[in-house]
Amino acid sequence: MSSTGKPTLEVCFSPALLHLYNTKNAVVVIIDVFRATSTIAAALHNGAKCVIPVASVEECIQLGTEIDNSITAGERDGKVAAGLQHGNSPLEYHPEFIKDKTLVLTTTNGTRLLHMVKDAAVIITGSFLNLSAVCNFLAGQNKNVLLGCASWKDRFNLEDTLFAGAVVNRMQEKFNINCDSARAANHLYKASGGNDFISFLRDSSHYNRLSAFGLEHDMAYCCTPDLHPVVPILKGRELVVHY
Amino acid sequence: MSSTGKPTLEVCFSPALLHLYNTKNAVVVIIDVFRATSTIAAALHNGAKCVIPVASVEECIQLGTEIDNSITAGERDGKVAAGLQHGNSPLEYHPEFIKDKTLVLTTTNGTRLLHMVKDAAVIITGSFLNLSAVCNFLAGQNKNVLLGCASWKDRFNLEDTLFAGAVVNRMQEKFNINCDSARAANHLYKASGGNDFISFLRDSSHYNRLSAFGLEHDMAYCCTPDLHPVVPILKGRELVVHY
Repeated sequence: MSSTGKPTLEVCFSPALLHLYNTKNAVVVIIDVFRATSTIAAALHNGAKCVIPVASVEECIQLGTEIDNSITAGERDGKVAAGLQHGNSPLEYHPEFIKDKTLVLTTTNGTRLLHMVKDAAVIITGSFLNLSAVCNFLAGQNKNVLLGCASWKDRFNLEDTLFAGAVVNRMQEKFNINCDSARAANHLYKASGGNDFISFLRDSSHYNRLSAFGLEHDMAYCCTPDLHPVVPILKGRELVVHY
Repeated sequence: MSSTGKPTLEVCFSPALLHLYNTKNAVVVIIDVFRATSTIAAALHNGAKCVIPVASVEECIQLGTEIDNSITAGERDGKVAAGLQHGNSPLEYHPEFIKDKTLVLTTTNGTRLLHMVKDAAVIITGSFLNLSAVCNFLAGQNKNVLLGCASWKDRFNLEDTLFAGAVVNRMQEKFNINCDSARAANHLYKASGGNDFISFLRDSSHYNRLSAFGLEHDMAYCCTPDLHPVVPILKGRELVVHY
């Protein structure tokens, strides 16, 4: 808690900066808009039993063999990784396909950050697809919050920061914000106009990279607020829907 | 050089992220707006022979005893550090006082970043006080550029980023920019309106911290563009005026 009596809200731009923040007893929101946390929101909202995020393709294959009714998924360089069944697009996980299944998902940046956070009270995942659900959850916790951007290989990225800014903007009355990263994220959010996120993100490194794989439609989907209004929360190794 | 034929321009938000950037043969601009690189510009423009940035108070005292006609300066917690003669305000170093003297200056964030950069072709320092001089220098180098924000104890800060954004905004036609940090800095610069920097920075961590020491006037001075149009360039251990 801060001296104002309100809990604090901070933003961490990169896993390489995580050590600067106190996550003890805090709520940590893992943000990997393109596309891990978008896919997690979509899969869980569409009925997946849970999502298990793992760091390596090998671990993904191994868990896939151990868990009944599971799907292994993940991409490397824009293609389904060798040995896995599905990709990293939220559009793949429609209800008929994913209902009651366990999605074992390997991603690089988002999973790494999620596994780095050790002492938080709660870890959830955030994306535009579940923006309002995340905000409502945070408003009800009365705990310090860290918005953790997965970034790209530790480099600051615009899309995760824009989402963090959307949260800061909605939460600023309820939290004490004395964090320049949070202020900057909020400035970016306001600069975006607050609704047409994909247009704002067209001039960004990740948009350029994923466009080369033909993923423009995927990214536009990931930038649509509140299509999948669930709060994925980490229980042990599983992300499940918070009720 | 990038594939466009133009050199690249990138922004590093924190010394803790410096390892992600290739500084070999690049021009690196060290940015510590509040207040090291502002004071360096003021002292050199007002006639100092050179500025020697050092990391510790002890080293500052030692060099002060070794170098004729030198001044030792530096602050800790907003006060002149014990054993030193002067503080960290650009307003202290007027021409009558500083002319032909060597300023041995200890600062924490800016000096540390400056000493971390090992393989750059050129290291200069930047602040609003020498904004146009820095931009003109960069435009004439035909080298990749990294704008290095000193930050605050490795945490992203708004004032160094705003200055970086001012440089990005002026340089964007001359450089290839595929760096989300640079894009974000430019968005912040545009959000500031591009002239009243101090008003934009009043809601920032460093402004809050330094205001508690009564340094509002100092910070307003540091936010005034082009009062001290010199390019401080590192030669050995000395920052001198580039001609």
